[in-house]
Amino acid sequence: MSADVEHPRTADLQLERVLHALSDPIRLQIVRNLANCESLACGAMDYPVAKSTLSHHLRVLRLSGLTHTDIVGTQRFISLRHDDIENRFPGLLAVIGAVRDPQHSAH
Amino acid sequence: MSADVEHPRTADLQLERVLHALSDPIRLQIVRNLANCESLACGAMDYPVAKSTLSHHLRVLRLSGLTHTDIVGTQRFISLRHDDIENRFPGLLAVIGAVRDPQHSAH
Repeated sequence: MSADVEHPRTADLQLERVLHALSDPIRLQIVRNLANCESLACGAMDYPVAKSTLSHHLRVLRLSGLTHTDIVGTQRFISLRHDDIENRFPGLLAVIGAVRDPQHSAH
Repeated sequence: MSADVEHPRTADLQLERVLHALSDPIRLQIVRNLANCESLACGAMDYPVAKSTLSHHLRVLRLSGLTHTDIVGTQRFISLRHDDIENRFPGLLAVIGAVRDPQHSAH
């Protein structure tokens, strides 16, 4: 369930906002790391920033439409909106190195 | 000649900085418009912003490595560093819609 967190609709995604979200090295790394995860718990994220800074980065990513946040109990799980981004901005994820490992694809 | 303006070397271009430069709608439009120009005089640029704001945007673009500024007399000519960007971040210009019109390519 993610009733209390806002997510932009795919049709409302703005390229400028997505590019801004990706213009920070930590946020760019988060997106790259999420490329091969179904979802990742916030608590399992290990970046060299304060917890409040990480929360800010995750909010910027979510509001840009790059990521989806699911709240399960007291945990937040973050996932990359791979298909939505690819649909709206084809090739962007490949350009920034956030591509799914081929072994994750169906054969 | 462009002795008095700073341009990052191709090898020093940073993806985060380029994405930040592109995260503003006016700067994104400038880059798209430059895609089919050899170069464009600043004075010929027509955007709905103050001249000082346009100067700021052009500086951000230049320092990110997206554009090159040539000073000829009292005029500044701006060009897109198409090959440098394509070389460092293949596909990025296509993703943002800054592609050369096919009629500009050699047959």
